[in-house]
Amino acid sequence: MEQTSIEDPTYRAAVADLLGVLAYGELTAFIRMAVDSDLAPTLSLKSSMAGLANTEYVQYTQLVDHMRGHGIDPETAMAPFVVPFAAYHERTRPKGWVEGLVKAYVGDGIAKDFYREMSVFVDEDTRSVMAHALDDAGQADFVVGVVRDALKTDRTAGGRLALWGRRLLGEALSQAQAVAVERDPLSALLVGSGVDLGEVGQMFTRLTDNHQKRMARLGLAA
Amino acid sequence: MEQTSIEDPTYRAAVADLLGVLAYGELTAFIRMAVDSDLAPTLSLKSSMAGLANTEYVQYTQLVDHMRGHGIDPETAMAPFVVPFAAYHERTRPKGWVEGLVKAYVGDGIAKDFYREMSVFVDEDTRSVMAHALDDAGQADFVVGVVRDALKTDRTAGGRLALWGRRLLGEALSQAQAVAVERDPLSALLVGSGVDLGEVGQMFTRLTDNHQKRMARLGLAA
Repeated sequence: MEQTSIEDPTYRAAVADLLGVLAYGELTAFIRMAVDSDLAPTLSLKSSMAGLANTEYVQYTQLVDHMRGHGIDPETAMAPFVVPFAAYHERTRPKGWVEGLVKAYVGDGIAKDFYREMSVFVDEDTRSVMAHALDDAGQADFVVGVVRDALKTDRTAGGRLALWGRRLLGEALSQAQAVAVERDPLSALLVGSGVDLGEVGQMFTRLTDNHQKRMARLGLAA
Repeated sequence: MEQTSIEDPTYRAAVADLLGVLAYGELTAFIRMAVDSDLAPTLSLKSSMAGLANTEYVQYTQLVDHMRGHGIDPETAMAPFVVPFAAYHERTRPKGWVEGLVKAYVGDGIAKDFYREMSVFVDEDTRSVMAHALDDAGQADFVVGVVRDALKTDRTAGGRLALWGRRLLGEALSQAQAVAVERDPLSALLVGSGVDLGEVGQMFTRLTDNHQKRMARLGLAA
């Protein structure tokens, strides 16, 4: 990893892309989770989901501050990702509270795993701000109990939510691929770091493995 | 104001009502502002509106913590206000970004003025946590410039938004009245503090005066 100097324009563009996609992902996750919290059947659950949304917002502001501090314009960095995120959220609009919960847990989990994979290729400073933005301190864990309870009371929920989880994975990967194709700086980061196709394949295997573990935690087939 | 001891069950019920309505109002404002931020035409405006939403959430959690610290169950305290707030937001769903902005500025302004009026009748400790929850540190001021710009570029916006502001005032007052009729502890707080009908009238005059000032700041007729 020779090109990990923020002075190098190619590397700098890759960092801007990475922080931009992460920041905008958290801003839209904030909005979607806030919207979905309105579907919660109890005040306590509404409050938990709102808290999850709020954490995304706080992490978003930390990333924006970091970008400004490093001379990266946050709006320019986020702009390329407006359309892919709109497409993802449009195509994965939850039909009810439990689908919203599974999306918050599973969809967000896939995205964060992807950013964690990418953070291996950046400098220590950038990796550290990314790690901070990716740590929800187990705040999403309340989802597990609620989904498992829903499975107990609704016999058809298991099959439906298993399909929903597969759909979330598919849509997330398809948007990630669209982004990778569009954004040369991100691809250059991988190529410049000497990553070959085999390693990209292993990365995808890890992403789907982690997805299966998350689904299993919810009591769902992946 | 003899009955300002939190040990007195009647007074305690009034405080629970007041903190409950304020907390739930901020939780729903958080959700609505987050939803409406999705209508923003630029990333910068989306971010500003999300920031406004976030402040409501932070203030909500402070109120919840305060209630718990004083042996008031937040969910029980908020429960009576779920229906009136749902009705208010259902009846004032913005048809676009600028309507959402005016609602955030004007609707939130009316609600906060009302809570400020009520805070005169409670003990110092409760008044102080309320004051903290009502202070947005001028964060909503960005709305003024955006609405004034919208008025410059759209000749029909002025009349439409003036009507919208009147509608927001009407709906807010009508829900406030419904709450006052339903919630004996809140009425008892006013009556027990020796407030007569004339003073209630003056309070409403102050609320509508402040509303007119806010509308004027936006460049709108009230």
